Amino acid sequence: MSWFRNLTKVSSFQLSNRPRNQNSFPFSSFTFLSHFSTDQQAHQNPPRDPIQYSGLGPTKPDEKPRVVVVGSGWAGCRLMKGLDTKIYDIVCVSPRNHMVFTPLLASTCVGTLEFRSVAEPIGRIQPAISKEPGSYFFLANCTGIDTDKHVVNCETVTDGLDSVDPWRFSISYDKLVVALGAQASTFGIHGVKEHAIFLREVHHAQEVRRKLLLNLMLSDIPGITEEEKCRLLHCVVVGGGPTGVEFSGELSDFIMRDVRQRYAHVKDYIHVTLIEANEILSSFDDRLRQYATKQLTKSGVRLVRGIVKDVEAQKILLNDGTEVPYGLLVWSTGVGPSPFVHSLELPKSPGGRIGVDEWLRVPSVEDMFAIGDCSGFIESTGKPELPALAQVAERQGKYLANLLNRIGKAGGRHANSSKDMAFGDPFVYKHLGSMATLGRYKALVDLRQSKDAKGFSFAGFISWFIWRSAYLTRVISWRNRLYVAINWATTFLFGRDISRI
Amino acid sequence: MSWFRNLTKVSSFQLSNRPRNQNSFPFSSFTFLSHFSTDQQAHQNPPRDPIQYSGLGPTKPDEKPRVVVVGSGWAGCRLMKGLDTKIYDIVCVSPRNHMVFTPLLASTCVGTLEFRSVAEPIGRIQPAISKEPGSYFFLANCTGIDTDKHVVNCETVTDGLDSVDPWRFSISYDKLVVALGAQASTFGIHGVKEHAIFLREVHHAQEVRRKLLLNLMLSDIPGITEEEKCRLLHCVVVGGGPTGVEFSGELSDFIMRDVRQRYAHVKDYIHVTLIEANEILSSFDDRLRQYATKQLTKSGVRLVRGIVKDVEAQKILLNDGTEVPYGLLVWSTGVGPSPFVHSLELPKSPGGRIGVDEWLRVPSVEDMFAIGDCSGFIESTGKPELPALAQVAERQGKYLANLLNRIGKAGGRHANSSKDMAFGDPFVYKHLGSMATLGRYKALVDLRQSKDAKGFSFAGFISWFIWRSAYLTRVISWRNRLYVAINWATTFLFGRDISRI
Repeated sequence: MSWFRNLTKVSSFQLSNRPRNQNSFPFSSFTFLSHFSTDQQAHQNPPRDPIQYSGLGPTKPDEKPRVVVVGSGWAGCRLMKGLDTKIYDIVCVSPRNHMVFTPLLASTCVGTLEFRSVAEPIGRIQPAISKEPGSYFFLANCTGIDTDKHVVNCETVTDGLDSVDPWRFSISYDKLVVALGAQASTFGIHGVKEHAIFLREVHHAQEVRRKLLLNLMLSDIPGITEEEKCRLLHCVVVGGGPTGVEFSGELSDFIMRDVRQRYAHVKDYIHVTLIEANEILSSFDDRLRQYATKQLTKSGVRLVRGIVKDVEAQKILLNDGTEVPYGLLVWSTGVGPSPFVHSLELPKSPGGRIGVDEWLRVPSVEDMFAIGDCSGFIESTGKPELPALAQVAERQGKYLANLLNRIGKAGGRHANSSKDMAFGDPFVYKHLGSMATLGRYKALVDLRQSKDAKGFSFAGFISWFIWRSAYLTRVISWRNRLYVAINWATTFLFGRDISRI
Repeated sequence: MSWFRNLTKVSSFQLSNRPRNQNSFPFSSFTFLSHFSTDQQAHQNPPRDPIQYSGLGPTKPDEKPRVVVVGSGWAGCRLMKGLDTKIYDIVCVSPRNHMVFTPLLASTCVGTLEFRSVAEPIGRIQPAISKEPGSYFFLANCTGIDTDKHVVNCETVTDGLDSVDPWRFSISYDKLVVALGAQASTFGIHGVKEHAIFLREVHHAQEVRRKLLLNLMLSDIPGITEEEKCRLLHCVVVGGGPTGVEFSGELSDFIMRDVRQRYAHVKDYIHVTLIEANEILSSFDDRLRQYATKQLTKSGVRLVRGIVKDVEAQKILLNDGTEVPYGLLVWSTGVGPSPFVHSLELPKSPGGRIGVDEWLRVPSVEDMFAIGDCSGFIESTGKPELPALAQVAERQGKYLANLLNRIGKAGGRHANSSKDMAFGDPFVYKHLGSMATLGRYKALVDLRQSKDAKGFSFAGFISWFIWRSAYLTRVISWRNRLYVAINWATTFLFGRDISRI
């Protein structure tokens, strides 16, 4: 009854101020009442173990079939974008409600781009998710898959907020697409998880930025030893792949263009070291590699060839006993299958990813597909494992969307209804070439099919321009294209943003 | 010696790739060496208790005198902007390296504005801080003031990073300006600190945004009870001052314009309730207050008059026993002196702030001034305590900058050298009027000197326009003016950003 007292108070309060609009109120007061009058048990202190909710049951033959997409990376989002929402309801399960435009993530660490400019809400990629009654996005992790029952089990993500406990629920699917991606590989090196920062998610970039700015400010404290100053301002990047090189380039660009003015006191102490076991950008052709090496060293990046043995809070140990003190450690040595992928009792690819056939189906089970970094061709296909690249994931998502739309139109849309259907042309990957930026308006573009093939490859300002425009047009929404362009323009005009929020 | 091995490795690696540029390397290798070869002890596991660093000693008579500014809010930043850096070195001590443009903070919670658009790096407000050899910004908290020795004690802020321990250091000052601001007052109500979110810093706004989006997504989980859904989507704002009203307005605007499209499934469950013990916007005139009440209720904000007794993780208890379940609780019931201000053994104002005379000097001590929300006139001045408003702080900062420049030019720049000087005109505050936005292109502008005075006051679209332009021109840098304008434009065109990063 307490709400009644409350409501009288409200209405009286309102009347005192607004003679008109009374009629509107009783209605809203009733909704108010209906919302809260019956919720006695719900608001006692909640139980500590996860609450089980019903979730979504199987679709009936006369209902719209449901495609469940696990993951919201390049593969999953491209798929959702391409699915025909007249044929299917789409349910996406992911711990983040946006897609990260990974190729530009490195630029956000130093403030060249803003974080939001590289994050695309899923509701904007596939509007049906937020509009269609049967389509949903769930901020949750996939905890298990029952391929016989056609059910996915999920648990909500709550950032450990005390006010919300994780909830469990399950979703029945007609078609399941696993696009979980991969996780950064540490090669079991001790201390990497604890002390290194990866560059996979927006919050990683935020962490890098916060720590970099913190170290810049701490190193300014008068009386601090030279050694400590150098340690704090020593940024170490492990892994000489495109990500590591791009981040090193951005970082040295940030130092050259911004730190020198904004942190004049410490500008001579900040250094970037890129540690790589073999050669940097090994997938690029020799000429480009040499060009990259030259550019990076020119812009002050130290290239060290070495193998990391152990990582401590303030220093790295290399195989040969070298100690490398650091203030910021970024780890980008490639990716591997996640523990969840390991745990799945499904056919696997030679590399331990979820095994798929030429049509990206998971063999031996019905209505299940896997795309992106989490999937690889099974041995019997005789096809090689594709590199963990955005363009592979994007192409697979696009292919699978068309495949599902086609079999959907052909009457194979519901669970277990496409067993004996023809799936048409298998997925064939054609490499369009690789790109990497070096910061300071320089980039590499390698348009060869493979490492050994002949073909175009060029470097310098023009390729930097191509690289930027290429990405600019790939950022999905016009909103973000606009913001990326504006970010680049303001960075060019005013320099990078250094406020630590 | 380990670095030698490392370096040979580096150089050989480089030579193999770039025949030219060899000469440049030996040099950089030496700097490299000098940086790291001698730091044995520095990189053992660091001690757990704070390291003491020397800091900055007293300035000599022939050196540039030092103004130490504690705090980086409206008062402190306006002061630093106005100080003549030819006369003084400026040292700023604050736990954040930027100024928060507080009047626009509420708009960032729902994505109308981006967080960075309302944060202004101090280096941009006063460039000398990052350029002049004797000027610094220290990311640190002030832990004590020794007014006799003219010394400020500080401890660095490290966000509890395991890799960095807090460091202690002290700074001698010629002039000290305390502009610490105030802290949100909870009136000792249990549970407020634990469960409510204040709206004072950027990270508060980030927290509101993350929680709001989390609740919107959680409430979408199928099978969840009606009650839980309503609780999660019930946003409660306590405090009917401008901040509370502005946030409620923005929130209902967000619900009306964005949630209805982007979260179609739950749009009918989300509600905003504004709880105020007395009347909302009590400082505004009756006509405006009634207009505000009408507008807010029209846009779906429930106005409840009540006094909060206790706050729990999922519900509020009001004095009359009413239980108000909530998913998001924002607390904006005004501010009071911080514990640090309490702890200072200095004359206090009747309201418990740092007491100052008509020239904003702290009586009974030399060369110490206090401005902004942390300061108040001592009783003997016979002047009333000024409201904790941005415009008061801004005016005081401007006044004190001119005062310090003047006595600096007159030879009173060094410590204890301005004892018997004439300080000129005292600080006089003239209220320019109050403004508050209600969301949906509506705002209030009250240009009266005081609550009871006569004067202009108007409401609606025109005042909203005035409000926006007024703030737009006050955002300090052109970069941020640009971003705020762009944010408003894109919000208008594309709606608000809902990616949860």
